[in-house]
Amino acid sequence: MKMAMAGGLALFAGDFLLMAQDAPAPADYDAFAGSDGFPIFTINNLWICISAALVFIMHLGFATLESGLTQQKNTVNILFKNVWIISTGVLLYAFWGFNAMYPGDFNGFFATGSWFGGSLDDTSLTTSAYNEGYTWWGDFIFQAMFAATGATIVSGAVAERIKLPAFMIFAVLLVGFAYPISGSWKWGGGWLDQRGFYDFAGSSVVHAFGGFAALAAVIVLGPRNGKYTSSGVKPILGHSLPLATIGVFLLWLGWFGFNGGSVLSADPKLVSFVFVTTSLAACAGAVGAIAISWIFLKKPDLSMALNGILAGLVGITAGADVVSEFSSIIIGLIAGAIVVFAIVFFDRIRIDDPVGAISVHGICGIWGTLAVGIFSADHSFGTQLLGTLAIGAFAFVFALVVIIVLKVTIGIRVSEELEEVGLDAEEHGAPAYGVPQG
Amino acid sequence: MKMAMAGGLALFAGDFLLMAQDAPAPADYDAFAGSDGFPIFTINNLWICISAALVFIMHLGFATLESGLTQQKNTVNILFKNVWIISTGVLLYAFWGFNAMYPGDFNGFFATGSWFGGSLDDTSLTTSAYNEGYTWWGDFIFQAMFAATGATIVSGAVAERIKLPAFMIFAVLLVGFAYPISGSWKWGGGWLDQRGFYDFAGSSVVHAFGGFAALAAVIVLGPRNGKYTSSGVKPILGHSLPLATIGVFLLWLGWFGFNGGSVLSADPKLVSFVFVTTSLAACAGAVGAIAISWIFLKKPDLSMALNGILAGLVGITAGADVVSEFSSIIIGLIAGAIVVFAIVFFDRIRIDDPVGAISVHGICGIWGTLAVGIFSADHSFGTQLLGTLAIGAFAFVFALVVIIVLKVTIGIRVSEELEEVGLDAEEHGAPAYGVPQG
Amino acid sequence: MKMAMAGGLALFAGDFLLMAQDAPAPADYDAFAGSDGFPIFTINNLWICISAALVFIMHLGFATLESGLTQQKNTVNILFKNVWIISTGVLLYAFWGFNAMYPGDFNGFFATGSWFGGSLDDTSLTTSAYNEGYTWWGDFIFQAMFAATGATIVSGAVAERIKLPAFMIFAVLLVGFAYPISGSWKWGGGWLDQRGFYDFAGSSVVHAFGGFAALAAVIVLGPRNGKYTSSGVKPILGHSLPLATIGVFLLWLGWFGFNGGSVLSADPKLVSFVFVTTSLAACAGAVGAIAISWIFLKKPDLSMALNGILAGLVGITAGADVVSEFSSIIIGLIAGAIVVFAIVFFDRIRIDDPVGAISVHGICGIWGTLAVGIFSADHSFGTQLLGTLAIGAFAFVFALVVIIVLKVTIGIRVSEELEEVGLDAEEHGAPAYGVPQG
Repeated sequence: MKMAMAGGLALFAGDFLLMAQDAPAPADYDAFAGSDGFPIFTINNLWICISAALVFIMHLGFATLESGLTQQKNTVNILFKNVWIISTGVLLYAFWGFNAMYPGDFNGFFATGSWFGGSLDDTSLTTSAYNEGYTWWGDFIFQAMFAATGATIVSGAVAERIKLPAFMIFAVLLVGFAYPISGSWKWGGGWLDQRGFYDFAGSSVVHAFGGFAALAAVIVLGPRNGKYTSSGVKPILGHSLPLATIGVFLLWLGWFGFNGGSVLSADPKLVSFVFVTTSLAACAGAVGAIAISWIFLKKPDLSMALNGILAGLVGITAGADVVSEFSSIIIGLIAGAIVVFAIVFFDRIRIDDPVGAISVHGICGIWGTLAVGIFSADHSFGTQLLGTLAIGAFAFVFALVVIIVLKVTIGIRVSEELEEVGLDAEEHGAPAYGVPQG
Repeated sequence: MKMAMAGGLALFAGDFLLMAQDAPAPADYDAFAGSDGFPIFTINNLWICISAALVFIMHLGFATLESGLTQQKNTVNILFKNVWIISTGVLLYAFWGFNAMYPGDFNGFFATGSWFGGSLDDTSLTTSAYNEGYTWWGDFIFQAMFAATGATIVSGAVAERIKLPAFMIFAVLLVGFAYPISGSWKWGGGWLDQRGFYDFAGSSVVHAFGGFAALAAVIVLGPRNGKYTSSGVKPILGHSLPLATIGVFLLWLGWFGFNGGSVLSADPKLVSFVFVTTSLAACAGAVGAIAISWIFLKKPDLSMALNGILAGLVGITAGADVVSEFSSIIIGLIAGAIVVFAIVFFDRIRIDDPVGAISVHGICGIWGTLAVGIFSADHSFGTQLLGTLAIGAFAFVFALVVIIVLKVTIGIRVSEELEEVGLDAEEHGAPAYGVPQG
Repeated sequence: MKMAMAGGLALFAGDFLLMAQDAPAPADYDAFAGSDGFPIFTINNLWICISAALVFIMHLGFATLESGLTQQKNTVNILFKNVWIISTGVLLYAFWGFNAMYPGDFNGFFATGSWFGGSLDDTSLTTSAYNEGYTWWGDFIFQAMFAATGATIVSGAVAERIKLPAFMIFAVLLVGFAYPISGSWKWGGGWLDQRGFYDFAGSSVVHAFGGFAALAAVIVLGPRNGKYTSSGVKPILGHSLPLATIGVFLLWLGWFGFNGGSVLSADPKLVSFVFVTTSLAACAGAVGAIAISWIFLKKPDLSMALNGILAGLVGITAGADVVSEFSSIIIGLIAGAIVVFAIVFFDRIRIDDPVGAISVHGICGIWGTLAVGIFSADHSFGTQLLGTLAIGAFAFVFALVVIIVLKVTIGIRVSEELEEVGLDAEEHGAPAYGVPQG
């Protein structure tokens, strides 16, 4: 049983969930199914499960966004990496991560994980004795779909030049090991949670985590060949903006589960409110990025508009349930502006991030976390700053160590020849678009 | 509080919702959460929120359908417009439209809108005191996702030759201003509602509205260069039928929320019935369009089959809850036939609609509205005709005035050179499909 | 009313559904809506409806997967077939299949179907008197979306060389006639159900059925020209792996409804458990296929990884609610390995299946059905073997007879010339990707 977790989570699950951790387990599931509390438990759990499915589809969103924003010759490689991340991510979370991130008791910094499996006959896992909002399995599948997103963020930033085995190992360690640790600091009731740090659905726990892991990896990996030359920055165009657009809209769709499911129940007040703040921030993010890029880059830039949507979504994620509707628009607008400047900035300092992941998830993840301290009177700016820096720094250092170890052992960078011809045909044995015949 | 709206909507929300508007607001949300009515309120509200997410994904459906059915060189432009429409559409609905469309009291023709924001502590917004089916925010987000669809319909019809700034202003005025007005005539309890006009989920309020606004815009804008020559009509092929197919299937998926959510509760009888009539009409629309196009155009035409699905969906939208299963098949079949003839007809009179939006949404929107008067004994054909003509005419005249004003001020048509080379590279600074390298 | 069905289904719908078939119909829907049982009925029915929408999106998944894995020149043809299958599939299920598959009384082998329409005023269809989990229409739409998948499986296997009219007739007979018959053997309470055969969501009833119908069709149809030559097997690459990847992720998403909805209620314990086993098997299937293909084919093969996901999903479908979490991983891993060997095997014996449908659905469908007999102590391996062979053999023989009759009458194979130039331009009058202009 996860008493500590239920207690920790109740902090942001709406007051009607309080006392969940005190309910005794009914002796018999059928008796629970006949009780007054069963309908609301059923709907809460269903929403968590549907949210898990929505977060799952974000993995398709990332796969299509990342492949759309990169070159055709590396498309199979990116899609393969995304299949790998979701598949191993969920399995590792089952074998170790879930019980490491939501430990019953721990020192607040690091808990020993373990295999998550439970018994269908154990009513302490299948009823409101576990949590008012979900069963053990509903809890697991929702959190497991979250877990894999961290590595997906990195996948786009290191695209087009990282060695496949190196990335596969990196992703496994990041999702399977690092994410549950820093995640437990907040959502497992650890030291950040105890200090009052607030991160509703993961501007820091998920997005800044992924963004700063990506930054470390990109620094060590270096830019794509030919991107930065003595004559300046050479734009390398994405090979399919329709694919990228599909990706962003699917990510937005998935965010209804990412944020809406983070209510951890179907509470009508909070779920509907979170849907509204999430959407307003996404819309404002697009408008902000369109305006700023049109003014400064002189073009109505589609990829900036798309990144603006994501920036708004990342920005609202930490405070979707505690800031007002109007604040959510401001947060989104600022995030949309930030992302344009950040993308230009990283290009200027020759940090080559093909999809803008560091800017979208890293920088706007920080922004969203700090925004809670600005737009919600109940939260401290200083604590928010501490929390986002702690998580970002942990992710950065962890990723840095892993990528350096991989560099000196199996190598992390493909050969110049391979980078030139593309990873698909050579490494994967198939081009993404076959050979048109007839 | 929106008493007038709750009363107006209750007309088509199933009888168990009656009296919603009479419930006193509980003093305390926690007390409501412990009451007998909370589980059903929670599930109703959840379904409205999920429906909002489904209607949201229709915007991706429109984006992919429209870009798939047009030329590669204008793909970025279309995608950009769709990002713009959803983003500004939701924001404008928050700032003005929602309170204009669902006013508490008004003269039946025009209400003054306002910023929609509310307080989470106000139990008259968060409980069944507002509505048995949803909270204030659930109501808003569902209706906001609807609102933006009107401009999206226009987007496809004017594709490949309209100036971007002109379209952006046009879309803002159409979604932000015109749609809430004519929408209030029915769904806000206005003059059409008071006369017994019936439009369950918007064959007229949404689709004929968008279709006739598109017709006005296309008439003023003129056809694409080279489309109609002295030697006849030159077909301009869409650049990606897979993209168009993705679009139509996503639109069908979204329609489960568009129609299913318009029950305005999770009422099991009506939601399941509406799922069935909606799907049967979509299927029959495909079969009707396939049959008619094969007979008259001599080919199993995929784009006609796809438009047949949409025609069936638009056709059933006005009466999905009041016509029988068999009638829904007939309505869909006829819609599928109509759409083929309408597309051919508009091409013959040189109205250039690249995606068939006027036929699908305008003509089949009228058909669906009239079908309620034919296939449901409870509704008058004359009133249905009045309603659909009123809404269509309003949309047409409003759009006509706006597009003419835009034409004589900032201009609405791109240069011949730009139309020839395509809007993407020049206007947006990036081609949709990059440059394949290696 | 469908008493026999309610009884049959209750076997695998969780114990709290027992006695559903004994509830008397309330005289009045409003009275039911005010009763204690209404909230849980509402949520159960909503989940079945949402599941229907999720299974619907699998049809887009199949359409994109199949077109992605085949050549560009036949893309329109495949998309058209998928539109045809879903459209006629649902209509035929309404006119005949639903009442044939879930008959009130029958001999256990074959029941006479009929038009399914019911009355909204009939409380024996709209309340828990019909079933605790759904209304008549919820039941119909969920099962109708299932029904069409069988023919979709075949669609991919016969791609690129079958005559369109022949396939259209074949699909109609398979979905409209054969599937309800063998489906009734298990889910209609027929002879296999009475012997204790277990197939939770259709490893055999849907997938082995489709896979073995495909095998028969492919044997008669023969391989694509040039695929097998005296010098060996010539790989024919799919034209868009992004499209195929979109397909597989959408299929996984849909499977949450396919398996999750097969709980036939929103029961929190079972729905969440099934979400977990389904996802773990999908993940393990990917890992299994990646490992095996890397070892034996020496490449990290994306299409094998994608088929591994599907293999895991098909494999877990029969037992998702009765095997442990760990068993679901083993089942998925083995399915992922099987599918690689099966694809290679069928290629070696010159059975040309462009998308691997026979391996994924046929072979892994058998595996999943047998796995219930291995990993669940409550089920007999022998009975599972009998059931899967009976259904597979029925599908094979039915398809064989139909395809042979079609061959000797209207012909099933396009001309060599047409196969060479592709089906799209000639047969459908439009290429999939238009002509890039500018």
